[in-house]
Amino acid sequence: MKATIIHGGFDVRVEEVPDPVLLAPTDAVVRVLLSCICGSDLWPYRRTAERPGGPARIGHEFLGVVEEVGADVRTVRPGDVVIAPFMWSDGTCPHCRAGVHTSCLHGGGWGDDRVDGGQGEMVRCPQADGTLVVAPVSPDDARLPALLTLSDVMGTGHHAALSAGVGPGSHVAVVGDGAVGLCGVLAARRLGAERIILLGRHPDRIAVGRLFGATDVVTERGDDAVARISDMTDGLGVPHVLECVGMQSSWDTAVGITRPGGTVGYVGVPAGVTDGLPLGTLFTRNIAVHGGVAPVRAYLPELLQDVLDGVIDPSPVFDLELPLDQVAQGYVAMDGRTAIKVLLRP
Amino acid sequence: MKATIIHGGFDVRVEEVPDPVLLAPTDAVVRVLLSCICGSDLWPYRRTAERPGGPARIGHEFLGVVEEVGADVRTVRPGDVVIAPFMWSDGTCPHCRAGVHTSCLHGGGWGDDRVDGGQGEMVRCPQADGTLVVAPVSPDDARLPALLTLSDVMGTGHHAALSAGVGPGSHVAVVGDGAVGLCGVLAARRLGAERIILLGRHPDRIAVGRLFGATDVVTERGDDAVARISDMTDGLGVPHVLECVGMQSSWDTAVGITRPGGTVGYVGVPAGVTDGLPLGTLFTRNIAVHGGVAPVRAYLPELLQDVLDGVIDPSPVFDLELPLDQVAQGYVAMDGRTAIKVLLRP
Repeated sequence: MKATIIHGGFDVRVEEVPDPVLLAPTDAVVRVLLSCICGSDLWPYRRTAERPGGPARIGHEFLGVVEEVGADVRTVRPGDVVIAPFMWSDGTCPHCRAGVHTSCLHGGGWGDDRVDGGQGEMVRCPQADGTLVVAPVSPDDARLPALLTLSDVMGTGHHAALSAGVGPGSHVAVVGDGAVGLCGVLAARRLGAERIILLGRHPDRIAVGRLFGATDVVTERGDDAVARISDMTDGLGVPHVLECVGMQSSWDTAVGITRPGGTVGYVGVPAGVTDGLPLGTLFTRNIAVHGGVAPVRAYLPELLQDVLDGVIDPSPVFDLELPLDQVAQGYVAMDGRTAIKVLLRP
Repeated sequence: MKATIIHGGFDVRVEEVPDPVLLAPTDAVVRVLLSCICGSDLWPYRRTAERPGGPARIGHEFLGVVEEVGADVRTVRPGDVVIAPFMWSDGTCPHCRAGVHTSCLHGGGWGDDRVDGGQGEMVRCPQADGTLVVAPVSPDDARLPALLTLSDVMGTGHHAALSAGVGPGSHVAVVGDGAVGLCGVLAARRLGAERIILLGRHPDRIAVGRLFGATDVVTERGDDAVARISDMTDGLGVPHVLECVGMQSSWDTAVGITRPGGTVGYVGVPAGVTDGLPLGTLFTRNIAVHGGVAPVRAYLPELLQDVLDGVIDPSPVFDLELPLDQVAQGYVAMDGRTAIKVLLRP
């Protein structure tokens, strides 16, 4: 089969690799219908230092049709359309039972060791019962792109909003106009937020943000953004702030606009945060920091239902679709911010 | 009157200063019945660099009898026994109304500018209506030491426990066996915690911790403490951790023992945290960080009622009582950890 391999900085290629086979009785093999490129895939993509482990599979968001299941698999069957969360997990360990599937004692990531990456034609899925969620749709359903967002970005935006304590009537700010930030806007609206301030500066992204429920847009950055939001909130700041970038500058903005006693809900992979969190400022203003790598598996059933019911449609985050063969162009587009998020069709 | 002045590192003295007078119609003048020394007073005490502002008043915990009130004061009257939270606040600004009195738009600290410190015979109290809480007791009530803890340490321990999300049945760990950590134990028990692991190594402090409700004691430190608690929790960690010290080492321990998806409730003044918070670890394990300078004014009424009802008695944190004249000995005792917390009687 064909799969994407990252060889080094700015070097991803589609290559021929062995077809996956069942290795454990809890495995399933899934034929990928749709995959995509994540903002977090850009971190290894931009890392020009030699890769310590050599070339590797990449991609952690996909949905597809089950081809084959191991003898112990009970909840998915060949022919099912399934959504894969961006990490696999057994669903039964204490952390999974507590809803923190990303800390599963028997889980892991796609593209690690002998597990396939999502940006390919097929994937061997470990812990299929715990990991895969059946979507009651056909393989040509028009909602597949919306469902694919539940693999990561929509669940991650939801985690940011939940972690920030967003609820009915909340006043919210979202730092970051990438796909996760935009999904954070949609998640905040879904949870009943009354005011949603999106911090972003790209007209195409802002348009999606408005569609998703942003009531205000702040295009300033850094200290200017902090001053602008102070003006907008009578100098008080915003009680619920979603940090959806993971850079030092975005963290500085997020903390700077948070109201005393408020919460920063964060999901941006902290790849660019070098100074650690400013504990003194957090302490003085009683700002909570809550979030992390999103346990999207925990949220998949309820978000799936809302997509099927038409309550939410996160699919506008995909603004470029490419065949898998052209995955390299997709990385170029996302790295250059000419695309918000790239859909890949094997 | 007499009041404590900090002149520099390891140099506090009781000196004669002018008696306070009403400066604003919202002021009250309070004659101090009891005051005490806080662990956070040790930070300036240990700072041997020259004080930038010169000698200053010190002390932020006291209770006393109202001597005189300004024309606009409505809720306290001369003769009332009142408890002062460790910061003063108007009680009416948006932050106070949201329960974050420490961020009051018109508040401040004791010993700043022209406001007296608590370690003296009298204090001018700004914003008396917002700040002072009347205790319906006589000036010779035996519960005054217990009530004095509501000025800071007991409310601060409660803030740590609340911030950590402690509730009925919770499993909790408390990092720090100082007065605040011990009050954190008591607060966790009051909130219904089922298991309370106290990390400490001083037998006298551990005894108070046991009295306050600690079910387990861990005397190891650093990595050994993390390993010990991992053993005690089947490798999972503790869901609710109270950080009551504020040093880099105590933070490392607190984060190290927190279960994925758990919360560090913190109140230790981060005077010794140089590296910032380890965002990568927090992210990977979904550990929330929640707390800060405790808005004890918000908690005073309910904690006061519980002290009066005999539900809690935090007074065992005071293990040394001195007359105000001997305040310097009190600092020596707390700096040398021969006393947990020193009560001062003017």
